[in-house]
Order: sequence, then structure tokens, then C-alpha cells
Amino acid sequence: MTDTVTTGSWGPSEVPTTALLTDHYELTMLRAALKAGTASRRSVFELFPRRLPPGRRYGVVAGVGRALRALSHFRFDDESCQFLRDRAIVDQETADWLADYRFGGQIWGYPEGEIYFPGSPLVIVEGSFAEGVLLETVLLSIYNHDSAIASAASRMTAMAGDRPCIEMGSRRTQELAAVAAARAAYIAGFSATSNLEAGRRYQVPTTGTAAHSFTLLHSSERDAFAAQIDALGEDTTLLVDTFDVFEAVRTGVELTNGRLGAVRLDSGDLALLAKQVRELLDSLGATRTRIIVTSDLDEWNIASLAGAPVDGYGVGTALVTGSGHPTSGFVYKLVARAESSEPDAPLVSVAKKSSQKISIGGRKFALRRLDAAGVARMELIGVGAPPPGDHNDRPLLVQLVRDGEIVGSETLEASRQRHFRTRAELPMEALKMSRGEPVIETRFLEPGGVEAVNPFADSEVKGTP
Amino acid sequence: MTDTVTTGSWGPSEVPTTALLTDHYELTMLRAALKAGTASRRSVFELFPRRLPPGRRYGVVAGVGRALRALSHFRFDDESCQFLRDRAIVDQETADWLADYRFGGQIWGYPEGEIYFPGSPLVIVEGSFAEGVLLETVLLSIYNHDSAIASAASRMTAMAGDRPCIEMGSRRTQELAAVAAARAAYIAGFSATSNLEAGRRYQVPTTGTAAHSFTLLHSSERDAFAAQIDALGEDTTLLVDTFDVFEAVRTGVELTNGRLGAVRLDSGDLALLAKQVRELLDSLGATRTRIIVTSDLDEWNIASLAGAPVDGYGVGTALVTGSGHPTSGFVYKLVARAESSEPDAPLVSVAKKSSQKISIGGRKFALRRLDAAGVARMELIGVGAPPPGDHNDRPLLVQLVRDGEIVGSETLEASRQRHFRTRAELPMEALKMSRGEPVIETRFLEPGGVEAVNPFADSEVKGTP
Repeated sequence: MTDTVTTGSWGPSEVPTTALLTDHYELTMLRAALKAGTASRRSVFELFPRRLPPGRRYGVVAGVGRALRALSHFRFDDESCQFLRDRAIVDQETADWLADYRFGGQIWGYPEGEIYFPGSPLVIVEGSFAEGVLLETVLLSIYNHDSAIASAASRMTAMAGDRPCIEMGSRRTQELAAVAAARAAYIAGFSATSNLEAGRRYQVPTTGTAAHSFTLLHSSERDAFAAQIDALGEDTTLLVDTFDVFEAVRTGVELTNGRLGAVRLDSGDLALLAKQVRELLDSLGATRTRIIVTSDLDEWNIASLAGAPVDGYGVGTALVTGSGHPTSGFVYKLVARAESSEPDAPLVSVAKKSSQKISIGGRKFALRRLDAAGVARMELIGVGAPPPGDHNDRPLLVQLVRDGEIVGSETLEASRQRHFRTRAELPMEALKMSRGEPVIETRFLEPGGVEAVNPFADSEVKGTP
Repeated sequence: MTDTVTTGSWGPSEVPTTALLTDHYELTMLRAALKAGTASRRSVFELFPRRLPPGRRYGVVAGVGRALRALSHFRFDDESCQFLRDRAIVDQETADWLADYRFGGQIWGYPEGEIYFPGSPLVIVEGSFAEGVLLETVLLSIYNHDSAIASAASRMTAMAGDRPCIEMGSRRTQELAAVAAARAAYIAGFSATSNLEAGRRYQVPTTGTAAHSFTLLHSSERDAFAAQIDALGEDTTLLVDTFDVFEAVRTGVELTNGRLGAVRLDSGDLALLAKQVRELLDSLGATRTRIIVTSDLDEWNIASLAGAPVDGYGVGTALVTGSGHPTSGFVYKLVARAESSEPDAPLVSVAKKSSQKISIGGRKFALRRLDAAGVARMELIGVGAPPPGDHNDRPLLVQLVRDGEIVGSETLEASRQRHFRTRAELPMEALKMSRGEPVIETRFLEPGGVEAVNPFADSEVKGTP
């Protein structure tokens, strides 16, 4: 696989470094560890969720491709080093180390579009402590955001079924988060975005026609519609709720001799209005004119419109804010490290002791256990060694970086297809919109197959076979 | 005033354009309006909130400086134009128009750090329809995000009083949204951020010392603390809850002979723990060692810790997600436009007719009315003409752009001081943490002082003098 992103991912165009998208303390830890001689200890960091957002039944991994891109641009250039020295955040020795920094270790992870559950080891970073600790902030930023969007988006596209969902939330989130959100939504099944930069940078299909301002600009709605049809063709989508919806629909049909592409409803009782508009369109002979609805849609509204004659959904605020859960709550923890800086020093598992903030020490290995019918039944996580195999177990971790070289890039389309495939594996209850527990259980196994105490159990469903 | 941002705001370093951080439909509207000959009609767009987030008593304007910076980088370069042509989003005539596009109009707005209420005309853009419509998405993205962060941050710093708040939420939001969030939080009174790029780009003070991973890297907590103190000095902040808090505090005090700068508590019952740790520190003679608390703090937790011996708060997730309201819900509407494309054609007010999505047509003028004691009592908005003056009225709109030239840039420090000043003007009830109505009423006045019907009244408090 090759890195298919051909233009820069960090601004509208190529920019030199992502290295300062990092918390101050990563640098002070590095400085202290370099001085103490512990920075080179071989270490394993793990990025994982302690739980799903309350009520959610599954989560969706997104951000992998962006994270790999960020890694490839993670360089402490002269300006960055100068800034860190000027502010006395690092000393000269640390600055010199940073100038030469290239991540040279191994990264495994769940591939993009995959489903996750509490405790899923989404990313495993192996290298020296220094190498791994520096990546904490930027990896968490990307995964926490993108997975929050994808997890919400997946519920929406599941509820929409065969009807397309269009992402149009750019205006309700930070301008560059918007680009990432459009990408994550596409992976989770959205068909298109309004965001042009997502089109340019990630080749996500873009779409859009007109806002109320366009109608209001003109001396009459008829003038506005005529102008739009003249420029964009009869297959365009007319926004029909600036004044009177039914009048507007009649005007649009008349101006196109019934060949109007679509109408968009952006206010009111969408189910009722869609039914009335469908009847009117049909009575006017515009039987092929589609109805697109927008206006504060979320997964519940989409579900409630399943019986209405709607042909597509435009989703904005709820999508880009993760439908109530704008961040995923992933954490990045040191789970194992060498006893000394010797290259062959054995690894020891480590974990913080805290009753509230749970970590499990040790390098993880993850499988999704499927039943004979191919339905997901368990997230099986080996601690320190792979869990005993089963021919219906699907390994979840793939190598993303080998000896510092990115090997896990793939196309957005591949991630999107993986999402459709892995979502389809879940038990039916995964798609319930009611609040519930994770739809399958996560189980941790110590080497030899002994079941470990499961610290995430309070957020899990019990008794799934 | 000059633009004091010396390095690029769109990626970690300078990048050429923000023009594609734009919804597809802005371009198709432009294309249709150019063809119809209506694109050059003089137009007034307004960016405003229909309401505050439920329960909030005031909002804080942020993003002004970033929006002006985005405007100065808003150019359809060759690559952008080529992308739009390749995708057939625009025709050649429109692409040619875009290649020459420079905003040449006027922009007025509430300055950064100012308070706002429902209906406050936060930004007024005057120019041709074409000029104004293109800015919709990027202006909304920036204002909706940055103001959501600042509005949450202001409540936190108000509750913290004289104790400093540190922004440390980078890992819980998109990696570049994190930089903007750190900036917005600083404007709303935060003292520092963990985000290094915010330090480099905006000169926000940065801070941080160590995470649990640093302790776990070492063979003992004592080794870790000694390494940290050796590299960062005795004035450092030790994270003391990896194993046993009280043991850790004793170790830290011992290693510094009582001169330890601070300890950080990141789990447990923070109020109780802070009290116990304070007693222990004092008993050990470390009376000047500060106590910093972190761990899912929000404005309510900060308020509840007012009586605890805490010296500073680190705030993450709640800050960067707007404490329950990750977006501000601002909209950008055409409120007036010329009757024709003639340069001297008179403006007519326009507004969509919808029972749910309210707009008031007409160019707005805004004042904050203060009483004799200097306390804010009303948001007074003239429609089409300035409201009749009063010597205790404070004008809220300043010119940000004159004939396309940015004239409204200022330092972050100026915005921050404005925020402190304008928040101090509010009635005391503004700082209640309980859910409530906007703390002052918004009133709209037609020319001549006749009060307009107030469409935002359902979200306002009545009867404030």
C-alpha cells in the first residue's frame, strides 16, 4: 500500500511540520528522561477507549490515514527548535536530539473504518520512550476527533439505509476540523460533503446548490429559480422554503416542465411536509423530482423520517459535533517498558493505580470473535501474547508503521468499504437508536488463556455468548 | 492597529489560501448570480446568534482576529480554480472571476472578547452579493467554534476567580481546532495552555511538566521525581497520583527540602484530596508548594472547589468541547440588498419567512445600554438606523475591514482585557452557574425609535430595566 494523499493535510496546502501540535509536557518529559538516561528505554504505548460514549453500542475508528500523514510531517524544524529554546522549554541537548528526531519504531493499529469497543487497543506504538511519548498529543487529537465524527456518522447512515446522507456541517465546527469531519463522515458511509477542501484534499464528492440568500437576492423567487436553473440545469436542487413551500414547488416544476432534479426542505415538520410535497410533485407530473431534507437532523430524526417520502438527508451540526459526543475519550498510556536501556532488556508491564482511571499494563493483541453465522460475538484481547486462535476470529491489528516507515496507508474508499463490512457483522441490536450497552463484550486474556480481571466490565453488556 | 500575527494561521506554518474552506453551494450561487447579472447587487450580510445555548446567561465573541487573518488569505489560486473547474463546480467565467477575487467591501463587527446576546449583530458584511456570499462558510466556522470555546472558558475563569486556569484539552479536539481553542480560552481569561503551537503562533504562554507515563518509565516513583527535579528544577510540578498520593507528596518534599513548586492531583475526590495534601504539605514545612488539580474539570467542578486549598485548575475536555455546547449556532444571513445592480440603487431589507428560523431584515446598529452605575441593562439594536443615543450607551460595532483593507486587528492581550472589562459590566446574575435566561434583554428599534417586534423574545429575560 502506498500513501495516496498527494497534497498536504495540515493546512489548505503543504506545510512543513506537525511537531508543535503537541503538549508542552511531552517535551519536558523528554528533556528529563534524556538527562536521566531513561529516554531510550524500549516502551510500548497504547491508545484506547476506556468506554464508549454513554448509551452508544459501538464506535468507529477514524483518523488512521490522517495520523500517518501527521507522523510523516512530524519534524522539529529549525523554527520549532528555536521556539522551544527561546521559551526555555527544552535545553540545547534536547533541542539537538529533536532536530534529528525521526520515529523509527513500530506502530500497529485497528485499520480505518473498523468497529471498536471499550478497551480495544486502537493503536500500539513501540519504540524508545522518547520516540513514543512525543506522539501522544497529535495521535490523540486526530483519533479522538475523527472517531467521534465517524461514530456519529455511522449511526446516521445506518438509519438512512439506502438513502444518501450529505455532510454539510462545516460552518458549525472549526474550519479545519470541518475538513477532517467531512473525511470521517465519508468513511462512515456519507455520500458527499459540502466542504470543498475535503473534495480537493481527500477527493470526497462535493455537492450543493443554493441558500436562502440566493432567493432573497432576486426580485422574486421565480427570478431566483430561473437564474439557478439557467446556470446549473434542470437537474438542480431548489430550496423551496424561503416563502411558501407549495408555491415554490409549483414554480420549480413549471420552470423545468416537470424535470426538476430535486427540492430541498430546510424547516418545518419535515415528515408532514415531505408527504405533502411528494403529493404535489406527483400531481404536477414531477414524479422523478427528489425530496432532500435538511434542518438540524440527527440519527433519531433520520430514523423517524424512514416512512416519509424522502430521497436524501443533509446533516450538519449533529454530525460535526459527534451527536452529543464531540470527543471519543481515547487515552494514550505507557503499558510496558524495558527494565533498563539495554537493547535486550526485558519488557515489564506498567499501569497507574487509580480506582477511576483504568489501564491494563502489557502489550495487547486483539481479535474479533465471530460465531458460525459470521456475527460478531466478542472483542478478545490478549495481554502480553495473542489470544488462542479460532478459525472464525478476525485479527484486528495491522502494522501501520515498520521501522519508522509508513506501511499502512490505504484509500478512503478501502476504509469506507471496511466500515460497511464490519458494521454488517455486528449483532442487529447494534443499530438500535435507544441508549444501550456495547453490543459485544470485551474480554482480556492473560498468556495461556487465563481470563484477566476486566476493568471495563462496568460499561459492558454481560452474557453475550 | 496592525495585524500582529506574524506567522501563518492555517497550518503550522504559512499556507497560501483559505478559499476552499467553503461550502460548495457558495460557488454555485455565485455562478448562477454572475450569469443572471445579480452578483454585483450591493448586499448586507449579518452573522448573528438566534439564541444563546440553553441555560447560558451570556456569550463571548471570539475568532475575530482569526477571521481577519482568514480573509487576508482568501484567494482562489491556480490550484483552487483548477479544482473547481475540473469538478465542474464553476464554469470558466466564474473561475476567471474567482481568480481576480479580492474582498473590497466593508466589515463591521463586535470586537474580540466582547459579550453578546441573542440577536447581537456580531458581524456585518457590506459589498456585492458575490463578495459577501463567498465568506459565509469560513466566517461561520471560525466564529461558531472560537466563540463556543470562549463562552465556556469565561464561565470557568469567572468561577476560578484569582486562581489561574490552564487549558490542556488539545488531545480531546481536532489537532488544529486545539490551537484555536487555546487562543480562545486565553482571550476568555485562561492563563496558559499546554499547546505548543498556540505558543508559537499566538504567543499564548505554555506550561506543562509530566504525565503518569514518566513515572511509570522509571524503576521507582522516587527515581522519576528525582529525574524531573534534576532537569526542570525544584519549582516543577510533580504529578503525585500514580501510586499513593501521600507517599508521593512526601517523596517530592524530601527531594526538594520542602521547596517543591507544586503537586498535581489528577484523580479522586479533588476537594477532599486537596485538603489532605495541603495539610500534609504544611506539616512537612512545604507551605509554599502549590496544589494544581486536573481531571475532567468544568465550570461547576471549579465552582465546587472554591473552598478547597487549590492553587490552579487544568481544564481539558470540557473546555475544548464548549462544556456541552461545542458550537455557537451563529448564522449568516442576507439582510438587505439593492433593488438592482446600479451603484446607487436603494437597499431593501430582506428576510426569509419561517416560523422557526427567525431573521430580521435590515442593516443593524448595536449599543449596550448601561445604567448610572455602569451595569449593562440592555442590548439595543437599531434596524436600518442607529438607535437614539444615550451618554451611557456603549457602541458595540467597530470597523474591521474598510474597502477590503483590514483595519480591526489587535493583540490577543487587548482582546483579553476587553473581555475582563465587559464581563465585569454585566449584572451579578451573569455569573450564576445555574441554568438561566440571557442576563440582559435584546431590544430592536426601527428608525425613529419605534420598537420592533422582537422575534428572539422567547429566549430572553423580561422586565430588566
